[in-house]
Amino acid sequence: MTFEEMWAELLPVGRSASSGGYRRHAWNSADAECRAWFEQQATNRGLAYELDRNGNQWAWLGDPRGDGAIVTGSHLDSVPDGGAFDGPLGVVSSFAALDELRDRGTEFTRPLAIVNFGDEEGARFGVACIGSRLSAGVLGREQAYELRDADGVRLPDAMERAGYDPAAIGADDDRLRRIGAFVELHVEQGRYLTEDQPIGVASAIWPHGRWRFDFHGEANHAGTTRIEDRRDPMLTFADTVLSARQQAELAGALATFGKVAVEPNGTNAIASLIRGWLDSRAADETVLTELVERIRQSALRRGEQDGVRVELTRESYTPVVDFDGPLRDRLAKRLGGVPVLPTGAGHDAGILASAVPTAMLFVRNPSGVSHSPAEYAEQADCLAGVTALADVLEDLACQ
Amino acid sequence: MTFEEMWAELLPVGRSASSGGYRRHAWNSADAECRAWFEQQATNRGLAYELDRNGNQWAWLGDPRGDGAIVTGSHLDSVPDGGAFDGPLGVVSSFAALDELRDRGTEFTRPLAIVNFGDEEGARFGVACIGSRLSAGVLGREQAYELRDADGVRLPDAMERAGYDPAAIGADDDRLRRIGAFVELHVEQGRYLTEDQPIGVASAIWPHGRWRFDFHGEANHAGTTRIEDRRDPMLTFADTVLSARQQAELAGALATFGKVAVEPNGTNAIASLIRGWLDSRAADETVLTELVERIRQSALRRGEQDGVRVELTRESYTPVVDFDGPLRDRLAKRLGGVPVLPTGAGHDAGILASAVPTAMLFVRNPSGVSHSPAEYAEQADCLAGVTALADVLEDLACQ
Repeated sequence: MTFEEMWAELLPVGRSASSGGYRRHAWNSADAECRAWFEQQATNRGLAYELDRNGNQWAWLGDPRGDGAIVTGSHLDSVPDGGAFDGPLGVVSSFAALDELRDRGTEFTRPLAIVNFGDEEGARFGVACIGSRLSAGVLGREQAYELRDADGVRLPDAMERAGYDPAAIGADDDRLRRIGAFVELHVEQGRYLTEDQPIGVASAIWPHGRWRFDFHGEANHAGTTRIEDRRDPMLTFADTVLSARQQAELAGALATFGKVAVEPNGTNAIASLIRGWLDSRAADETVLTELVERIRQSALRRGEQDGVRVELTRESYTPVVDFDGPLRDRLAKRLGGVPVLPTGAGHDAGILASAVPTAMLFVRNPSGVSHSPAEYAEQADCLAGVTALADVLEDLACQ
Repeated sequence: MTFEEMWAELLPVGRSASSGGYRRHAWNSADAECRAWFEQQATNRGLAYELDRNGNQWAWLGDPRGDGAIVTGSHLDSVPDGGAFDGPLGVVSSFAALDELRDRGTEFTRPLAIVNFGDEEGARFGVACIGSRLSAGVLGREQAYELRDADGVRLPDAMERAGYDPAAIGADDDRLRRIGAFVELHVEQGRYLTEDQPIGVASAIWPHGRWRFDFHGEANHAGTTRIEDRRDPMLTFADTVLSARQQAELAGALATFGKVAVEPNGTNAIASLIRGWLDSRAADETVLTELVERIRQSALRRGEQDGVRVELTRESYTPVVDFDGPLRDRLAKRLGGVPVLPTGAGHDAGILASAVPTAMLFVRNPSGVSHSPAEYAEQADCLAGVTALADVLEDLACQ
């Protein structure tokens, strides 16, 4: 089965007719279809199929218990109304790269595996990379058991309903110890790869975090309250949104408000409370810390002017992830000196990097659109990605 | 039963223990308690109790079929988590004023009625002043039948469940034709009445409306999309919020964004669509029209800069309501030259003004807070309001 045939098989799974976006969320029916597809691909190729204790799927060429395995893969789930490429491109390319290596007659000296990590996007339980976090011991079993989706369903119950055993979840040190290197191919989510460069290698994942700003004002009647008597948190929020963008530009970083909750959220009511979530990322942690502090100071200043009390809560924070230097250089060299670039997005590769030599390949994204049905990569670039991944795996698994 | 005793009886009805605000919404159990209280007050005083075809309650002294009746009253329902005064102050003051006039031994030459209009706040079905709008024929029976609450319950079904007959609803011309004048006492919702002036008379209700701004951007990944590739509608929205306030100040008018809806509303997603609802009011219609146009122009300019398409929809509009001039002057004179002031809020009195000579009295609100549990009026001011209302009713009903 060619890359194009595999791609065509996955394309309709979990796609919303109304939005055109994907709704493949952990343990839902679309996710189950993707998982069945993965198992079928493994079986079709005579690979040993294995489900690990955290719901991640593995397809093995060679001994699954052997040491120094070379692992590639990505994930098949999506953000709400996500695109077709984020995740699936890495999994499909892995199978296609293996096919290409078999066509080349490559003799492997190490075990080779393709992996589909579960619940990478965190769309259902609010925590990203759950499958890889559990395996790496970054997310504890007790914490995982407490996670609930928007309908109040607990993670272990969702797993069980989907036919998986939640009793087994937890750190999987033995498995990670047997991995010699992990390479994840991913569609680029920005637009740093230019016209002549369809493929890049990741240098690092920017440190990133999520901060909640609470703007406390005073509920009042929008039609009768004099301007001088208002304590309207919408003004403080609005000023903070603009300040965040301005400060981020000055710092060469990113700061985004994409989520807002308003109370009481009535047309004729001045808001009493606005919560705004800031997503911010930068090339290094000092820049990120200073940027968020500048945004906070600006919010406090404007809040004073508006009679609005501002509180800041850091909800999550991920330090910088530097991918394995020798591995990164080896890949870039093997691919003829392709660009080495950082990314602002989290990945399973970023989680595994703490335990295993890890690298990432990026495939060019002409519009830079990601987490949207408009996400796209040219077919020629996808095929170049398959060849690049095959080259890299050959280099690593035949040494 | 004194003003204070009536007030104390109503105070706990429909009050939320968590917010301290009132949740007396059309046809709910708290509303039913308020209605039972009204009927009891009428009966206790030997007044003829009557329920009209639109669910408004009436208590009559004199012949309910007589001509030239003087009517006072307000409403007992609340906005979500509203205050104790908005509505109930007018109803309780009406009973107290009648008691005061009886103590004075006043001989009435006209019928006198106290009214409790149903569903003034529109908290449940999204349309304000439903009881008075139906009676005045401003809201048609067919339109009313189509209204649904947040749970999808239709207005006639809600009425029926509460024990009222929805088959009868509709314009009530005969009833309105027999009214000589309507006077509504209400807590002031701004802070225009100053230290020496506990009571005011309304001149007009400002024209007001509700406009929905749709800001169309492009969904994208907050962590990877370069600033120059973004089409982030949150920026356009934020700039429009600040511009609306600034333009309103310049125009001596009001412009408020209190309600927002964000898609997809994810922390790590640049929004694809933001809807922001503008509530705007001004002393005259030209000023209001020009103000909204200036806000629209500003949104369009910023939208061009952000790559965001801006659409504006007028969702509702109420022209200026000028209260009856001779009646207004007569009240102000009878009360010793109290201030005559406009209001930005809609009222049943504003609906009735098209069919009946109508006036309003305002009782000072020291903080100006309204539609909030913090809404407040001093007891001395409330009692001054009772006496003012008694004076006015005596003047009108004994002529």
